[in-house]
Amino acid sequence: MANSDQRGGGVFYFEDLHVGQQFESGTHAIDERQIMEFAQQFDPQPFHLDATAATDTIFGGLVASGWHTAAITMRLLVTSGLPIAGGLVGAAAEIAWPKPTRPGAILKVESEILELRPSRSRADSGVATIKSETRNQHGETLQVLVAKLIVPRRTIRD
Amino acid sequence: MANSDQRGGGVFYFEDLHVGQQFESGTHAIDERQIMEFAQQFDPQPFHLDATAATDTIFGGLVASGWHTAAITMRLLVTSGLPIAGGLVGAAAEIAWPKPTRPGAILKVESEILELRPSRSRADSGVATIKSETRNQHGETLQVLVAKLIVPRRTIRD
Repeated sequence: MANSDQRGGGVFYFEDLHVGQQFESGTHAIDERQIMEFAQQFDPQPFHLDATAATDTIFGGLVASGWHTAAITMRLLVTSGLPIAGGLVGAAAEIAWPKPTRPGAILKVESEILELRPSRSRADSGVATIKSETRNQHGETLQVLVAKLIVPRRTIRD
Repeated sequence: MANSDQRGGGVFYFEDLHVGQQFESGTHAIDERQIMEFAQQFDPQPFHLDATAATDTIFGGLVASGWHTAAITMRLLVTSGLPIAGGLVGAAAEIAWPKPTRPGAILKVESEILELRPSRSRADSGVATIKSETRNQHGETLQVLVAKLIVPRRTIRD
């Protein structure tokens, strides 16, 4: 099922969303090189940098930084997984990594609308609480992200 | 004050931590190039990619992806801000971005131990809940991260 709830090629305004609505992203394959490059720049720890050194750590092998999984998740949401009008603008989120992302994982993000409410500060927008689960090709959930996004309403012009 | 609570050059085991303990990282200066490079790879939206296009968006100018701020925060914590034995291993976190990170910001992370408890699953570790605020050079808080980290106890060898 590819974005079964999605209208053809369009973007979603606040009025187009409903609780329980689901979205599915494309995929991203992650390898050792990507994991080590991200780690060198942002998370230089042995279990992200060096497959040999990583065998002696809590993870027993090379794993991606959780922030790398989060960044790839964002790319998948922006490019395919969550076609929200005006882009994906988050104010806050909860994130958990139940399992590490290992080299060879093919990541996909499945999202579901949990809650919709008017914005307190912006009459032109609403706030959507969206859960996005990042899974590998075996269906294992590697990351659970629950984010509050600002979603514009359709502009009414007279 | 540079890591005023920190013992010279050492790393911290679970027994070395106490609630209220504070840590301070080094700094990282962010510029347009870094913001756009990260965005091209992980968050390709107009307000992260193009200073001109960004002026017409909710942010009124180029801003870093929140995940970029998170990734730089991690780098600062790993390299200077939080010298935990065995590295920084997080299972879950809450994250909020009260203000966007703009080009020219000089980021620094101040962390504080909020809670310490034994690990339910690992006798050799504890769980530390740590709040890390990422601030710019004007003292504005750009990101608040509250993370639960697994912190090893000192190994007792007979």
